[in-house]
Amino acid sequence: MRLVRLGAPGSERPAVLADDDTAHDLSGLTADIDGAFLAGDGIGRARAALEAGELPRLDAAGLRVGAPIARPGKVVCIGLNYARHAAESGAQPPAEPVVFMKAADTVVGPDDEVRIPRNSVKTDYEVELAVVIGREARYLDSPAESAARIAGYAVSNDVSEREFQLERGGQWDKGKSCETFNPLGPWLVPAAGIDVPGLRLQSWVNGEARQDETAGDMIFDVPHLIWYLSQFMVLYPGDVVNTGTPAGVAMGLPGQPYLRAGDVMELSISGLGRQRQVCI
Amino acid sequence: MRLVRLGAPGSERPAVLADDDTAHDLSGLTADIDGAFLAGDGIGRARAALEAGELPRLDAAGLRVGAPIARPGKVVCIGLNYARHAAESGAQPPAEPVVFMKAADTVVGPDDEVRIPRNSVKTDYEVELAVVIGREARYLDSPAESAARIAGYAVSNDVSEREFQLERGGQWDKGKSCETFNPLGPWLVPAAGIDVPGLRLQSWVNGEARQDETAGDMIFDVPHLIWYLSQFMVLYPGDVVNTGTPAGVAMGLPGQPYLRAGDVMELSISGLGRQRQVCI
Repeated sequence: MRLVRLGAPGSERPAVLADDDTAHDLSGLTADIDGAFLAGDGIGRARAALEAGELPRLDAAGLRVGAPIARPGKVVCIGLNYARHAAESGAQPPAEPVVFMKAADTVVGPDDEVRIPRNSVKTDYEVELAVVIGREARYLDSPAESAARIAGYAVSNDVSEREFQLERGGQWDKGKSCETFNPLGPWLVPAAGIDVPGLRLQSWVNGEARQDETAGDMIFDVPHLIWYLSQFMVLYPGDVVNTGTPAGVAMGLPGQPYLRAGDVMELSISGLGRQRQVCI
Repeated sequence: MRLVRLGAPGSERPAVLADDDTAHDLSGLTADIDGAFLAGDGIGRARAALEAGELPRLDAAGLRVGAPIARPGKVVCIGLNYARHAAESGAQPPAEPVVFMKAADTVVGPDDEVRIPRNSVKTDYEVELAVVIGREARYLDSPAESAARIAGYAVSNDVSEREFQLERGGQWDKGKSCETFNPLGPWLVPAAGIDVPGLRLQSWVNGEARQDETAGDMIFDVPHLIWYLSQFMVLYPGDVVNTGTPAGVAMGLPGQPYLRAGDVMELSISGLGRQRQVCI
């Protein structure tokens, strides 16, 4: 079972996809898929309702796919969390996680258009495993406590403007929060049963392969990251953590082939679905 | 007229304070003071209702004061925006604004307790002028367009953990988003009629004066900042911009007198009210 939100921006309808790919309306159970829904064991209730045959079928054909979580409270990002990406960025592997933030209002659907910012010459893609928080995490005692805080996983594109991020006098956030800079989804896949280290992250631009590593290549794994972040901030249900990107971004490639209007990004993570965005 | 939110955390009631300091209930006009209220000329409607005598009196005695805006979408912060503070931080005055983010869930009431994070030894105060956005700002053509995007101003304490911010391998955000790290208020003061450069920002710890400059000492003034930010991100109604802190933070003082449990912070900006927080 996967959670999805289907419909026009701002009026998505919550739904689930069953294992046979049929879509089922969840709006009788919840107004939306958000932090309150996840904190109230929404995933368990959705699964029970689906298995009991209580969720009406939904014709998903032609419906836009939204981000699978409405209004994340915050989007926390981890930098340089894959050794080969750190190397291509000219950085040493960090001794502890690098943390920055992305405005939560940048989250859009997985196939929505991505706007290249005005005056941008270095817009870049980053396929990432997104962790969606299901239960509050505050000063966890150890990484072993992280799993119980995670609702599920999704594909995330941490779109970045490298000049704004690195050459404009300050912190990375300046190049991370442009409009439409965080396509998320298509699905929120419940955490139970997901073998995170085995997940394969891939990206393509105009059909050309760019990134291809597994989540097992992370320097700091997901349990470590959630435990670590909980020492510095409270993670609330509905918050999203982008866990870092593998090597192969435009900044690290010969000729630095940054994105231009008309370019098509595709991103996938095994078991979590596939995204496709046209740059405009 | 000033906008306030009165009551227990999470169930504040929207209200206005008239020029004679009487409180008037705004809950007949709006469920809360938030981005949608501000975008719909809520301030104008509140003023008209107050002047028409349509707002019932409210006994504010003994009521907790909340942050004057509910659920800011994002909190954007400007670093090193006063020359003397840049100098005390060991930095050059920046050539263009330094931008970072603070989790919006850190916003608390102006007199709520501030939690010193576990394992913190360098928690610090920062009195700042907060700008509250009233109308979407996207690619403004010039700083002259900024004023129409600003709903009003408030006192903000951009509480910071300097070790987390500066010595833990990465971006500043790590020391900026700890729980309770953004007391805001007491009031949202409508922008009309405010002489921003003349505003005097002051802070005290345990009664000892620490910061004292005017907003006119900013390196980049408010119109410049809103115009500048709008080139990198969209500012939405209800967003908050913390515009930087004057000299006199603990990090810059002899002996670096960082905050400890039991310390009392007080902050004020002329015309915008006064905050008082006990550190726990």
